Amino acid sequence: MGATFKEFSNQYKELLESNLRAEMQTLETPQILKDAMIYSLEAGGKRIRPLLLFATLAAFNKDPKMGLETASAIEMVHTYSLIHDDLPSMDDDDLRRGKPTNHKVFGEAAAILAGDALLTYSFQLISTIQSAQTTADTKLALIAEFAKAAGAEGMVGGQVADMQGEEKQLNLEELEYIHVHKTGKLLAYSVIAGALLAEADDSLIDKLRAFSYHLGLAFQIRDDILDLEGTEEMIGKPVGSDEDNHKSTYPSLLSMEGAKNALEEHISAAKKYLRETALNTAYLEDITDLIAVRDN
Amino acid sequence: MGATFKEFSNQYKELLESNLRAEMQTLETPQILKDAMIYSLEAGGKRIRPLLLFATLAAFNKDPKMGLETASAIEMVHTYSLIHDDLPSMDDDDLRRGKPTNHKVFGEAAAILAGDALLTYSFQLISTIQSAQTTADTKLALIAEFAKAAGAEGMVGGQVADMQGEEKQLNLEELEYIHVHKTGKLLAYSVIAGALLAEADDSLIDKLRAFSYHLGLAFQIRDDILDLEGTEEMIGKPVGSDEDNHKSTYPSLLSMEGAKNALEEHISAAKKYLRETALNTAYLEDITDLIAVRDN
Repeated sequence: MGATFKEFSNQYKELLESNLRAEMQTLETPQILKDAMIYSLEAGGKRIRPLLLFATLAAFNKDPKMGLETASAIEMVHTYSLIHDDLPSMDDDDLRRGKPTNHKVFGEAAAILAGDALLTYSFQLISTIQSAQTTADTKLALIAEFAKAAGAEGMVGGQVADMQGEEKQLNLEELEYIHVHKTGKLLAYSVIAGALLAEADDSLIDKLRAFSYHLGLAFQIRDDILDLEGTEEMIGKPVGSDEDNHKSTYPSLLSMEGAKNALEEHISAAKKYLRETALNTAYLEDITDLIAVRDN
Repeated sequence: MGATFKEFSNQYKELLESNLRAEMQTLETPQILKDAMIYSLEAGGKRIRPLLLFATLAAFNKDPKMGLETASAIEMVHTYSLIHDDLPSMDDDDLRRGKPTNHKVFGEAAAILAGDALLTYSFQLISTIQSAQTTADTKLALIAEFAKAAGAEGMVGGQVADMQGEEKQLNLEELEYIHVHKTGKLLAYSVIAGALLAEADDSLIDKLRAFSYHLGLAFQIRDDILDLEGTEEMIGKPVGSDEDNHKSTYPSLLSMEGAKNALEEHISAAKKYLRETALNTAYLEDITDLIAVRDN
C-alpha cells in the first residue's frame, strides 16, 4: 500500500461515485424518480462509509475494488436515510449540505419513493456481485448483516428512538442507544462487510466490531461538539441548532469538557482494537483520526 | 394434493400469519415501531401473493412450506407499499380495509419508518432461509428478482407513474405500464419465486411469467370494475371513488363492456399458459378464478 491516505481516498471515492452514476444510468424507471435518486446520491458528502469498507479490505491486503457493489449499496442506504430523515414529518429540514433537500426539489411523495427505491436497489446490488472471489454464502451473509444494520434493530430503530427522545431529557444510556443504532450500526457494517468479503474469522470480526463501535460513538460525539463549536460554514447548518431544538447531546449531558474526554477515550479504544487485529490498518487509523478532528 | 382449495388456502394463510407474528415477536426495537409494523401486517387482507407462491410450489409437487420465508417477505413488502401509498403526500387515505390507516394511528413519521423497516426486514428473511433444500444461489436469485420487482423498475416505479398519471387522461398503454408495475410485478414475483424455489428451468419460468402477467392485469381490471359495480360493503371504500378522483381506469378507457371483455381475455390467456406448463396447477387455476370473480 504505497499510496498516501489522501491518494487512496480520492481514488476510491471517485470509483464509488462513477459506479453510483453507472448504476443509475441503467435504471428503466420514470424520469422524476431517477432524477430524485441521482440528486441525493450526487449531493456529495464525505463517503465515510464506503471508505471504511475499502480501507478494511486494504487492511486484509485485498483489492478494495472487490467491495465496490457493497460500498455502493451502503451509500445508497445512507442516502435514503437522509432523504427520509429530512421529510416534513421527521426533521423537516430544507437544506442538506447547503442544497435544498430532496422533498423541496421533487416533492414529498417522490422523495419518499426515491428513498424506498434506493433502499430496495441496495439489496439488488449485493445479490448480484459479479466477482468470482466472493462466494454465494458470503453474499448472503453480507445481505443478512446489512438488513439487520439498516432495519428495525439498527438504523431505523435508532431513528424512531431519536424522534421519541426529542424534547425530552435523556440519560447517557438512552443517548447511546440512539447513536449506536442511528449512525453506529451502518458505520460498523461498513467495516464488517469488508471483513466478510475478506473471509475473516470470527475473532477478527469481533475485534473489528469493537473498533467500529467506538468509532461510531466518536463520530457522534464529534458531531455534537461541532454543532456548538463549529462555524455555520464548516457544518452547513446553523451553529447550536441542537440546543435550539432542545436535543440531548453529549456536551449537554457531560459538559463540553466531559464530551471531549469521552471523544478521546473512544478514539483511543478504537485504535487499541485496531492494533489487536494485527492487520495492515494504516488507512483505518487515518479514517479514525479524520473522524476525531473532522470539521464538518 | 387431496385438500380442496379452501382447505389449502386456510391452512397456508394460517401458517403465514403465525409466521409473521413469530418474526415480529423476536424483533428488538422501540415498541412503537414494532406496534406499527404489526398493526398493518395483521390488518388482514386476502394474502393473495403468499397463496400464489404456495400454490406454485404445490404445482411442482413441492412442500409449500419451503416458501414460508419468501411468502412472508412478499407480504411484508406488499404491506409496506400500502402504508406508504396511504400517506398524506401520496393517496392520503384515512381508511384501509375499514380500519384507520397506519399514519392515522401511529403518526406519519412512524408510518414511514414502519414501512422502511418492513421492506428492509423482507430481505433479511430471504437471506436467512434455513431449509437445506434451498441452495445459496437460489436464495440470491430470489433476492435479486425480489428487489427488481419491488423497486424502481417494478412496484415503486409503478407508484410514481400512477401519481404522475392522476388527473390526466391516460391511454391504454400508459394505464398498462402503471398496473404491470404497480401491482403486476409483485404478483408475478410471487409465482416466479415459487418456480425458483422449485428449481424450474427457464422455459417453464417463461410460461409462468406469461401466466402471471395476464393474471396481474386481470386482477387490476377486476379492481376497476368493482370500484363501479361493487357495494361499499364489498370493497371497503366508497363506490365510484376512482371516478370522483378522475382516475383513468379500464372501464373509463374501454367502456364497461370492453373492460369485461378484456378481463375475460386475460383470464383465458392466463389459463392457457398455465396449461402449457403441464404442472399440477389446480390451485393456481382456483386462484385465477378467484381473481376473476372476487368481490373485494
